[in-house]
Amino acid sequence: MSHSYRQCSGVMFASLLLFSGALQASGSGQEVNTEYEDTTLVEITGGLEHPWGLAILPDGRYLVTERKGRLLLVDGGDTTTISGTPEVKAVNQGGLLDVVLHPEYEDNGWIYLTYSKPENADDTRLAMGRARLDGDRLSEWEVLFEQDRASSAGRHYGARMAWMNDGTLLLTVGDRGEDEKNRPQHLDDHAGSVLRLTATGAAAEGNPFAGQEGALPEIYSYGHRNIQGIIVHPDTGEIWVTEHGPRGGDELNLIEAGNNYGWPEVSLGRDYRSEEQFGERSNGDMTGPVYEFLPTLAPSGLALVSGDTYPAWQGNLLAGGLRAERVLRVVLEEQEVVHLEELLLKTVGRIRDVREGPDGHIYVLNDEEDAGLFRLEPR
Amino acid sequence: MSHSYRQCSGVMFASLLLFSGALQASGSGQEVNTEYEDTTLVEITGGLEHPWGLAILPDGRYLVTERKGRLLLVDGGDTTTISGTPEVKAVNQGGLLDVVLHPEYEDNGWIYLTYSKPENADDTRLAMGRARLDGDRLSEWEVLFEQDRASSAGRHYGARMAWMNDGTLLLTVGDRGEDEKNRPQHLDDHAGSVLRLTATGAAAEGNPFAGQEGALPEIYSYGHRNIQGIIVHPDTGEIWVTEHGPRGGDELNLIEAGNNYGWPEVSLGRDYRSEEQFGERSNGDMTGPVYEFLPTLAPSGLALVSGDTYPAWQGNLLAGGLRAERVLRVVLEEQEVVHLEELLLKTVGRIRDVREGPDGHIYVLNDEEDAGLFRLEPR
Repeated sequence: MSHSYRQCSGVMFASLLLFSGALQASGSGQEVNTEYEDTTLVEITGGLEHPWGLAILPDGRYLVTERKGRLLLVDGGDTTTISGTPEVKAVNQGGLLDVVLHPEYEDNGWIYLTYSKPENADDTRLAMGRARLDGDRLSEWEVLFEQDRASSAGRHYGARMAWMNDGTLLLTVGDRGEDEKNRPQHLDDHAGSVLRLTATGAAAEGNPFAGQEGALPEIYSYGHRNIQGIIVHPDTGEIWVTEHGPRGGDELNLIEAGNNYGWPEVSLGRDYRSEEQFGERSNGDMTGPVYEFLPTLAPSGLALVSGDTYPAWQGNLLAGGLRAERVLRVVLEEQEVVHLEELLLKTVGRIRDVREGPDGHIYVLNDEEDAGLFRLEPR
Repeated sequence: MSHSYRQCSGVMFASLLLFSGALQASGSGQEVNTEYEDTTLVEITGGLEHPWGLAILPDGRYLVTERKGRLLLVDGGDTTTISGTPEVKAVNQGGLLDVVLHPEYEDNGWIYLTYSKPENADDTRLAMGRARLDGDRLSEWEVLFEQDRASSAGRHYGARMAWMNDGTLLLTVGDRGEDEKNRPQHLDDHAGSVLRLTATGAAAEGNPFAGQEGALPEIYSYGHRNIQGIIVHPDTGEIWVTEHGPRGGDELNLIEAGNNYGWPEVSLGRDYRSEEQFGERSNGDMTGPVYEFLPTLAPSGLALVSGDTYPAWQGNLLAGGLRAERVLRVVLEEQEVVHLEELLLKTVGRIRDVREGPDGHIYVLNDEEDAGLFRLEPR
């Protein structure tokens, strides 16, 4: 097992500690002492290039996507590149993005991937497909879903997936960040929405706009800018998402079928240049956020601590932050945020994904040129 | 001019940059690039031992209190210890605390100090007095105010001062952090309140509880835990304070005469051990905060950017944070927080005081064993 921070000189290491608050060295990792849990951050592997999504196999191996297009199988310190992945257009925020396992993966072996599918020299669509792992290659790859319109901008894909408790698959689609700002308000456009799909990529039954003329039947909620974190609560079925707003407008939202979350007409964020308000701050016809992250978080992967591996954190959300270089522990009571704690602040840089493994541990990917996969172990 | 970070080795300096985000070296300071203003952080002097309060003289010299009891006069890189300061009990959070100038300082030369005044071997009172500067000593020192009860705990003094536009002096008194928790709810006890005093320490005329039996006439607002930042808006007269709550309960409050701010009966904070809620989250008879700082800020000095030295920040509050090791830029619209930005995050450690100088620049004291006085210069 390698530790990237251990490759630094002693002086470097000492100064790292100086700027990491509660971080201290221990035998097999970095001590990360928090408000209510003392943990150790252990690097499982380094050498990842801008990883994006993480899925943990039942046998303890890890699937990691790298945005530029590689799918990696991590087995302890050994990393294998899996062949047979789809062609992606890795421009700006596009590339190979999320990876999740089918809820019955142990029986059927399906692995789901999202990516920016090239349409032509300029344009891409957000696409989703699945395959099985056969040694060091993917087999039976099939594209299950593509968004209805291709766009030139390589931005705001969304691309996160989560399974609902009824076996349907939620897929987030970003607004694609184009000059045409109002796409999330149009039900005939997948951009800026949460979709609810069958396991083979069709519109799931019972979606709120099914049968409505001019509305796409996959849409579950709309008016979103760019959702980069999503979890479904295993007990309550609540769908929590973290969403990139404009500056200062990053949101925690609770997704309900058919709701309009307001973007770009309603936002709490500010213009990146002028600091002027975007549109309105609220509108009775649209659903406001449960919480506005201030200062900017730039949200990435979102996990729920469902097990009792970290007793004081049970039921909390863990929201990764890119620009904020931290994970926020979000304490909810009756669907309201009652406390926040910063974890891993400027410890491993930008956070790209946070997941709870089948072993109850929390896993983190950072977003760096030389990034790693980390496990947070209770002490 | 010395720069403490320049005394580090090159490797140390490089790694400091690595963990400071937008911080870069420049000729005469550290570049601090923010959302809307590019600035340079210049160290005016180092070698301060846990400084607490800062006042900027009209001639460009600085008065700095050190918690252990010294009052320093900083003139460029030269620092002189001023004699004639009051005896303080520098235990825990007690010591020599705030320093402010009389609004007509240029005419009358009065310098106001707050401190923990020893009562006996164990107990102290928050006290306030004034003196004039005569070379390197204080002259005409007189104690103007002492809180009504002495307490053993060396915690939660409050001790910040600010002048109202009518020439009266606001003084914050903390709850003193004792087992007797409910003192802020009692109007016959100065603990846990904002006081409004004359320039000679008497109860100011027109205070809300004047003439009420069993109420102290100095009290302007009550139900506070520990206010460590206060400013009066020069145009609107609004009184903004930052207040230490229990974990997660740090608050921005707008102070109005006679209001009860709820501590310890109402709070958004959590117990330090159990993470349980303190009391109620709201109560119609008590005034809730304008904003709850999440995660924990541990607020210290508060400044208002009243001038146009940093055009994009005009009208913003700058709230120092101890544990959070940052300054929060607070953007208000119609008395609501609409945006926050982190400044100086883990750049100079714990922030103790933030002030706007008569020259329009923002000045910062950090809270370290070897601390400094810094000026943030626009570029």
